[in-house]
Amino acid sequence: MVKQVVLGVDIGGTNTTFALVDKEGRISFKDNIPTRQYSDARNLVRKIKESLGAELLANDRLMGVGVGAPNGNFYNGTIEFAPNLQWTGIIPLARYFQEEFKAPSYLTNDANAAAVGEMIFGNTKNIKDFIMVTLGTGLGSGIVVNGQILYGHDGFAGELGHVIVKENGRQCGCGRKGCLETYASVTGIKTTVVELLESSNIESELRGFKVVDLSGKIIEQAAVNGDEIAQKAFGITGEYLGKALANIIAITSPKAIVLFGGLAQSGDLIFKPTEYFMNKNLLKIYEKKVKLIPSALKSNEAALLGAAALAWKETANK
Amino acid sequence: MVKQVVLGVDIGGTNTTFALVDKEGRISFKDNIPTRQYSDARNLVRKIKESLGAELLANDRLMGVGVGAPNGNFYNGTIEFAPNLQWTGIIPLARYFQEEFKAPSYLTNDANAAAVGEMIFGNTKNIKDFIMVTLGTGLGSGIVVNGQILYGHDGFAGELGHVIVKENGRQCGCGRKGCLETYASVTGIKTTVVELLESSNIESELRGFKVVDLSGKIIEQAAVNGDEIAQKAFGITGEYLGKALANIIAITSPKAIVLFGGLAQSGDLIFKPTEYFMNKNLLKIYEKKVKLIPSALKSNEAALLGAAALAWKETANK
Repeated sequence: MVKQVVLGVDIGGTNTTFALVDKEGRISFKDNIPTRQYSDARNLVRKIKESLGAELLANDRLMGVGVGAPNGNFYNGTIEFAPNLQWTGIIPLARYFQEEFKAPSYLTNDANAAAVGEMIFGNTKNIKDFIMVTLGTGLGSGIVVNGQILYGHDGFAGELGHVIVKENGRQCGCGRKGCLETYASVTGIKTTVVELLESSNIESELRGFKVVDLSGKIIEQAAVNGDEIAQKAFGITGEYLGKALANIIAITSPKAIVLFGGLAQSGDLIFKPTEYFMNKNLLKIYEKKVKLIPSALKSNEAALLGAAALAWKETANK
Repeated sequence: MVKQVVLGVDIGGTNTTFALVDKEGRISFKDNIPTRQYSDARNLVRKIKESLGAELLANDRLMGVGVGAPNGNFYNGTIEFAPNLQWTGIIPLARYFQEEFKAPSYLTNDANAAAVGEMIFGNTKNIKDFIMVTLGTGLGSGIVVNGQILYGHDGFAGELGHVIVKENGRQCGCGRKGCLETYASVTGIKTTVVELLESSNIESELRGFKVVDLSGKIIEQAAVNGDEIAQKAFGITGEYLGKALANIIAITSPKAIVLFGGLAQSGDLIFKPTEYFMNKNLLKIYEKKVKLIPSALKSNEAALLGAAALAWKETANK
């Protein structure tokens, strides 16, 4: 029997992963290629088709293509000025997929794709208003309003990581200072650890690490071991994040906030302080209405499932 | 000829104003009654019908009723725990109108109604993503996403006035500290003037006023006269507002922000510093995309037209 599938594609700075995904989120084929080998994005699309060719012909009917990419713009189907990719300027990648695969193709940024993935395959299947927050190297966010991604007038809404939370705060990669992602992200918690180590004499197993070798996992393990600096760092990170969430709740009034990504895997260490400071700073009318929950998606599949979910959602809308 | 109209109702703490409004925003009947005289909200609705009775019978066909009210909830058609009204608890006012007028009735809060008014009758007729900011005693906001008011999961989204912009800042009426409306509102600029007067010896015509007698108009006139304290107060107000707008742009990416209400009438005095600090703090991808514009609605008609616009918009959606 012919099975209906979509192609999900996750464009990363190093690797591009792709898979065929059915309506229940089952992955039937998965492969990856090195992104940087394709100086012309069209060749990357062709290579993906080549890899899939036999598989697609054999069993499946391709209903659509969904792509998650850094600096992806849903309205235009383009990647625009992505600093971590080798393609400069504006790349009409959705069109390239459409032409190559003769199937409706959609593209959005990673965080929005993750939000769609959570909505279609994850913990927010029955929630029409929620915010997906990805805590990785930076902080990404996908905001869902009434069952739809909030794209804004230009397709670039949902940059919670670049809300300024501290006047003259930490230098951000965006050129400004005090952005939320300089505090609430893996990079942010590392900086916090370094600052805490430098400003105190508290004993800490983290003093043994070079700054470049610190990671979210190492800080997490230290905190589990009872290390005071590591625990403080999680507390400070959760304080910045929780306060920022209280503010964004006053804007979009979501029913849930989903934490995802490297730092979210530290569980209670990050959830507890975040939840505490979020609730403490909430306007009264929102009290006890907003759940802070983990993602249901596996970290190694989320980007792919998100991209695939985008394709399923948009083709269903036709 | 029978003309199609809607009934627009603006519920205020002191007065309730109502009018018949046609599709072009023309007001054909207007009256007001003292809100506090009606301890049962049903009697206020009956009184409005009584006033309109002859007028409605004579010429018009009532297509719907739109109500703007403090703490109004669109989803439920209710006023919920409004501190400035005599009605306690939850009042199903839209239902009362529906039963009395036998016409579809809708209710939302003042700021959302103003946003709908701007969208239907004002400066944002062709803009699908914008934010309406009302700078009165407090700061209200109505956020429009893809042509629809952003209500959130519970109908209470869009409380920009209660985003916390300063840690341990000014005491807000909501019980928390540092909310935007304690800085960017008529109340906020008065407080700023008082703080500036207390912390300096700069000569100022505002020193002659009792605090209770200060008003937005008086501060505006002093600024026009060249008063340094008054001008500084506008600059500080615009700085808080502009920075907060830069942050909310990163959330909803609007094409325009409309300033409305008492303080917005001070023109360049408030627009210039707000625009300067908004643009200065914008993430690069939003630069030069967002217009800061005044409302096209007359201040004495805006609430009514907004309520009427809500009725036109919702009945058109049926």
